[in-house]
Amino acid sequence: MAIIKNNSPVLFFYNNSKKWLTKISKKESFHTHIGVLKHADAIGKEYGSRLMTNKDKYVYLLEPTMYDYVMKIQHGTQIVYPKDIGYIIARAGIGDGQKILEIGTGSGSLTSFVASVVKPRGHVYTFDVDENFMKIAEKNIKKAGVSKYVTQHNLDLKIAKKMPLENMDVAFIDLGDPWTVIPQVRQMLKGSGCVFAICPTMNQLEKLTIALVENEFTDIESTEHIIRTIEAREGKTRHSFQGIGHTTYLCFARKAFFGRKSRKAAEKLKLSEIPSETPSKTAKKTSAKKITKKASSKTTKKTTKKSA
Amino acid sequence: MAIIKNNSPVLFFYNNSKKWLTKISKKESFHTHIGVLKHADAIGKEYGSRLMTNKDKYVYLLEPTMYDYVMKIQHGTQIVYPKDIGYIIARAGIGDGQKILEIGTGSGSLTSFVASVVKPRGHVYTFDVDENFMKIAEKNIKKAGVSKYVTQHNLDLKIAKKMPLENMDVAFIDLGDPWTVIPQVRQMLKGSGCVFAICPTMNQLEKLTIALVENEFTDIESTEHIIRTIEAREGKTRHSFQGIGHTTYLCFARKAFFGRKSRKAAEKLKLSEIPSETPSKTAKKTSAKKITKKASSKTTKKTTKKSA
Amino acid sequence: MAIIKNNSPVLFFYNNSKKWLTKISKKESFHTHIGVLKHADAIGKEYGSRLMTNKDKYVYLLEPTMYDYVMKIQHGTQIVYPKDIGYIIARAGIGDGQKILEIGTGSGSLTSFVASVVKPRGHVYTFDVDENFMKIAEKNIKKAGVSKYVTQHNLDLKIAKKMPLENMDVAFIDLGDPWTVIPQVRQMLKGSGCVFAICPTMNQLEKLTIALVENEFTDIESTEHIIRTIEAREGKTRHSFQGIGHTTYLCFARKAFFGRKSRKAAEKLKLSEIPSETPSKTAKKTSAKKITKKASSKTTKKTTKKSA
Amino acid sequence: MAIIKNNSPVLFFYNNSKKWLTKISKKESFHTHIGVLKHADAIGKEYGSRLMTNKDKYVYLLEPTMYDYVMKIQHGTQIVYPKDIGYIIARAGIGDGQKILEIGTGSGSLTSFVASVVKPRGHVYTFDVDENFMKIAEKNIKKAGVSKYVTQHNLDLKIAKKMPLENMDVAFIDLGDPWTVIPQVRQMLKGSGCVFAICPTMNQLEKLTIALVENEFTDIESTEHIIRTIEAREGKTRHSFQGIGHTTYLCFARKAFFGRKSRKAAEKLKLSEIPSETPSKTAKKTSAKKITKKASSKTTKKTTKKSA
Repeated sequence: MAIIKNNSPVLFFYNNSKKWLTKISKKESFHTHIGVLKHADAIGKEYGSRLMTNKDKYVYLLEPTMYDYVMKIQHGTQIVYPKDIGYIIARAGIGDGQKILEIGTGSGSLTSFVASVVKPRGHVYTFDVDENFMKIAEKNIKKAGVSKYVTQHNLDLKIAKKMPLENMDVAFIDLGDPWTVIPQVRQMLKGSGCVFAICPTMNQLEKLTIALVENEFTDIESTEHIIRTIEAREGKTRHSFQGIGHTTYLCFARKAFFGRKSRKAAEKLKLSEIPSETPSKTAKKTSAKKITKKASSKTTKKTTKKSA
Repeated sequence: MAIIKNNSPVLFFYNNSKKWLTKISKKESFHTHIGVLKHADAIGKEYGSRLMTNKDKYVYLLEPTMYDYVMKIQHGTQIVYPKDIGYIIARAGIGDGQKILEIGTGSGSLTSFVASVVKPRGHVYTFDVDENFMKIAEKNIKKAGVSKYVTQHNLDLKIAKKMPLENMDVAFIDLGDPWTVIPQVRQMLKGSGCVFAICPTMNQLEKLTIALVENEFTDIESTEHIIRTIEAREGKTRHSFQGIGHTTYLCFARKAFFGRKSRKAAEKLKLSEIPSETPSKTAKKTSAKKITKKASSKTTKKTTKKSA
Repeated sequence: MAIIKNNSPVLFFYNNSKKWLTKISKKESFHTHIGVLKHADAIGKEYGSRLMTNKDKYVYLLEPTMYDYVMKIQHGTQIVYPKDIGYIIARAGIGDGQKILEIGTGSGSLTSFVASVVKPRGHVYTFDVDENFMKIAEKNIKKAGVSKYVTQHNLDLKIAKKMPLENMDVAFIDLGDPWTVIPQVRQMLKGSGCVFAICPTMNQLEKLTIALVENEFTDIESTEHIIRTIEAREGKTRHSFQGIGHTTYLCFARKAFFGRKSRKAAEKLKLSEIPSETPSKTAKKTSAKKITKKASSKTTKKTTKKSA
Repeated sequence: MAIIKNNSPVLFFYNNSKKWLTKISKKESFHTHIGVLKHADAIGKEYGSRLMTNKDKYVYLLEPTMYDYVMKIQHGTQIVYPKDIGYIIARAGIGDGQKILEIGTGSGSLTSFVASVVKPRGHVYTFDVDENFMKIAEKNIKKAGVSKYVTQHNLDLKIAKKMPLENMDVAFIDLGDPWTVIPQVRQMLKGSGCVFAICPTMNQLEKLTIALVENEFTDIESTEHIIRTIEAREGKTRHSFQGIGHTTYLCFARKAFFGRKSRKAAEKLKLSEIPSETPSKTAKKTSAKKITKKASSKTTKKTTKKSA
């Protein structure tokens, strides 16, 4: 039986749009428009208990889950939503013990959730280049209790001479121009390893797919995930009037070897030097180059801003 | 670098609708309409490599992930699909070390996936009453490599006198009449613990929601999850013409304490003896009783058939 | 070339969420947070022209379409949205010359749109029992310019002794308890005629479907219609972040004759007296009765409130 | 009461996926896997009646609606589906008396449906350049009974020197490269007139939107329309397991005047000579040119193939 103590994390839950993640501090009070509660009153209660505010509203004292941390994360950038995190975990088959590469830490929402799944024997290696965001992410990862299973790197992999990791099980890319780092991701992934990119626009999916084919990935799949809420009530069951809009598209693939002799050597080279593997060599090569060029001009600053 | 050996599991991948999960056996051949391959040719290759069949088709030798096991599971009943499994993991915040209760093992798809997430320190306790299904599930769980983290029980919790577990972090219910086991689930869950029910029909959501309120759960949420595939191709990007239909609805909730004195004592009693907690006592009570009665008549046989 | 004159209807269009339907009145001004315009400045301009407010914002002077009337209708009740109206017209094959029955006029949005399609040789006969709503609807229908093709009746068809119409091509039902008027609708429809009911809840679909089978309808189909907005912009195309939620479900069917001798005679009788045509007589009959009883108790007041 | 005669059109309806549109011919029989019927048995029956085949299956004799004609149209190309036709009618506010321009007749499904709505005082002028398709469309339009309200033109508007129509209320474009005919459509539309393009890909939406802005259209909106079928059955209501995939996206806009002096003169010129109206002149102009050039090279052959 888990009892709330001083310093315990608690989700004050009124309803799904009114909930607050906090740490119990015996001298503090909790003030909102639904009334006031003393933190001290929560101490000694079992998680799941409820308190009444001075405005006669019940507030539940829930034990925060990783979902609550992700939804309440402090974010300077877009977060990855649970519906999308869930599919990433399910499609890439993420579980205990895996080594994960993440390019674009963002607010650390995906980082934290995945760390909680791969721990204690797995690890998340996450890269970003913006120090401000990295500090926010560090705080969020700590709050979620998974710092031990995450290593944050301040390194721009696009210009790095040597890749710092190898044999990764899964890679995530959350950049505005994900196609620019596919050769680097390839080098660090194990054979048959999975990659997932967070792509808010259709154009990103398109460019990324071209780059994935060029770089010998297979099982390429782009999806979007829609969650609809149902109000189940006796005799009046219907979908929620409130709609949920677009968050992001997801692009998945697995590293393959197309078996060309040149391939493995090429992995050490830059994208523009890699020989094209597709039938219509010239056409594809041109488009890949165009992407690379376009991308490189915008890249430096954008690296750490999450797309859209 | 993971090299394929004799006895290694391999996913022969041609495309997303033509793929085969197998174990390499050096004397066997693989025969399909896209041609023939000798297993022996895969031995010594790195995962991700490809072979050409005698009909000039490339088949990729992928390292199976938990996703592949779930999608290729042998099932006498409905499986829980990855899109739904993903949301269950994300919404309930499932991670390493958790203790999971599952009522209705079915084919073992959810069982296996969740075991791979909570291992090595967590465990899945799964209950069913149909011996045939239990054997299928046992085989599937073994194939997925997580037997060590799963305990299968042949026990009908609806009529069990004493609940065999307590303090579970999360519970899953995959029965045709999930509302009938809410009191039992409540007893076995920790305070603030999460429950998820797999409900193929709207009517199940409705009855279940009533039972969850009666039994002092909060943060009740019913959802459905739609995955749409996008065909991202240069200059021709669009959604897939092929539609994906309904699989199931999901109902989530967390165990709370409404603070009535009678509550904790009541947990030892049967549903019909539990005092109603809702404002309009009579109305709700009647409906709950009706549910219980209706349900109990059909229950015995249906326990192990997954709904829908 | 259509020129705007004094008294011409105009849609002042700033963007899709800021637009105003008005009639030009040469001495008036139009005041909003995006600035001020003089109506007089619109006079003499061609539809489609734009004016600049004193805050330097462009406002387009569009010629209102039936869509604009429906979206800007004054409503005391729910309106039927264009996405749903569109499917109703397409599925029932509504066109010039048809005679339409509508039970539940509501705000007159569906009434007006359908009148504009069936005119000049068709007609809409619409029934309601709430005088306040009928006045609102009358105003809306007039504003939409189709009064000549609509007849409003203040009559409760549920208790009417004689049906006032026959041989209707299509019938609409927009009541909270649509199943209660299926026998009446049947009497007024031609053979093979179409019925459409506006059903905000799943439970209504369920009860209505039972009543439609009982009353010898075929081609029964329940649907929901989702519209997603795409923000198409160069290099950044994606779905809109803003979601659109549930409006209503739709239930369609066509009047058939199951060929029982009793059938045509029965059409003169009340629902409860109609012999059941379904295989499991008792079961269905009971449920139909239950519906009828339940319904009748709530019916009188609810008739004119649109459901949900 | 409509009685079936020799030569009457009838929809033999078994269920939603097994239905046949035919004309009664007293000496013929109807043969399918569900059995045999004599046409003669239908004569004298009221529409909505049913017959039993020699395999004891009921077949309903429904009076075909425009929906049935559209769904059963003979098509060498893609048809426009009712869910999309419905939204087109609703969003553009199509009703009696309107003059409609259609570029890309295709199979004539949209043509026929819209003709049935605008008749008797409106008319559809439809253009195509492929004689084979035009013949198929002619047959379909005749079968739907609206030939009187449709004029088919064999003319390539992309290269026509003079536009053959003016003051159209609404225009439809169903070409692979809809952006190439926007200047022509603009010339033929009335001020504030609506245009709808059928665009199976996201890339078409993107290019078209650029062209619409360049050519002074407003209220630009891209949407997609999803229809979900619900199986409403007592106690077992849920969405259909069968999914419905992508058909097309739709792009809507209304003709405006941005008020530049050059505008009206420019309408007589080609697209590439039109001065750009957008703030970032050079950028947009370039992209418009690129589109025009790219497009023109592929255009000649593609004109009559429906996209995707």
